[in-house]
Amino acid sequence: MTILGIDPGYAIVGFGVVQKDRGGLRLVSCGAINTPAGLPLSKRLLQISNDMATLIARFSPDAMAIEKLYFGNNVTTGIGVAQARGVILTEAERQGIPIYEYDPSQVKSAVTGYGKAEKAQVMDMTRRLLKLSAVPKPDDAADAVAIALCHARSSTSLLAGI
Amino acid sequence: MTILGIDPGYAIVGFGVVQKDRGGLRLVSCGAINTPAGLPLSKRLLQISNDMATLIARFSPDAMAIEKLYFGNNVTTGIGVAQARGVILTEAERQGIPIYEYDPSQVKSAVTGYGKAEKAQVMDMTRRLLKLSAVPKPDDAADAVAIALCHARSSTSLLAGI
Repeated sequence: MTILGIDPGYAIVGFGVVQKDRGGLRLVSCGAINTPAGLPLSKRLLQISNDMATLIARFSPDAMAIEKLYFGNNVTTGIGVAQARGVILTEAERQGIPIYEYDPSQVKSAVTGYGKAEKAQVMDMTRRLLKLSAVPKPDDAADAVAIALCHARSSTSLLAGI
Repeated sequence: MTILGIDPGYAIVGFGVVQKDRGGLRLVSCGAINTPAGLPLSKRLLQISNDMATLIARFSPDAMAIEKLYFGNNVTTGIGVAQARGVILTEAERQGIPIYEYDPSQVKSAVTGYGKAEKAQVMDMTRRLLKLSAVPKPDDAADAVAIALCHARSSTSLLAGI
């Protein structure tokens, strides 16, 4: 099973592709879609839409995992992130990829065993579980890999039943 | 010039198509995209994306006018609307339609001459300006027509200079 993890944003969309099979978990690829700050939002969103289509075509994921959205202190940024997230969901749906949404605490819990883990712990466990020499860069990619891992580990019991 | 006005939402997207030429302003069409409440958000967003593409193909608008987004009391609804708005902007951008954004007060001011006009006044002036026998239904369609009218009236001086 190939899982595409997504950390949504309008300036940076982190992505992480994790493969899970009988041999365990393996990081296939990770990185970020970056959209230029000078562009109008609609052009940034179109770039995200097109790049999502490219990622899905390249990795043929069996599932997409993405964080649920909560608004923090900056509502203006939150509106932009929500608009980008809508575009990302639409592109996955258009390609028929099943979408799974997780709370930040579910991601922490699935990766570290503790729902209130610090970010550094989540990153370190992400590195260990995938047997990487270093935490993926940039941060958005590392977050996306953790979200993919969350789905890989959350879906274990389900898969074992098949 | 044909203007597509959009009142964004994830349950209902209002649209209004207004034509502006030397003879004045004319309502070409209006209505709403409705997405079923029982569907997952990603499927509702994909339907909005596809229906927007259909609207743009049918009416070949020269411009799309859409309201800027502000968050009211219900942040959860606001997140859904923002996600739908991102999808709408992306589809317009994909088809190369120039996008214009207006504040609610700009719409009120352009239609009634008063930025703090009541909704009923905006609706009545929309009806009068387009010489309609009644205010368009549903409300989302009427709001979208007002947004298209706002662009038609805001862009008058610009067009006169060409």
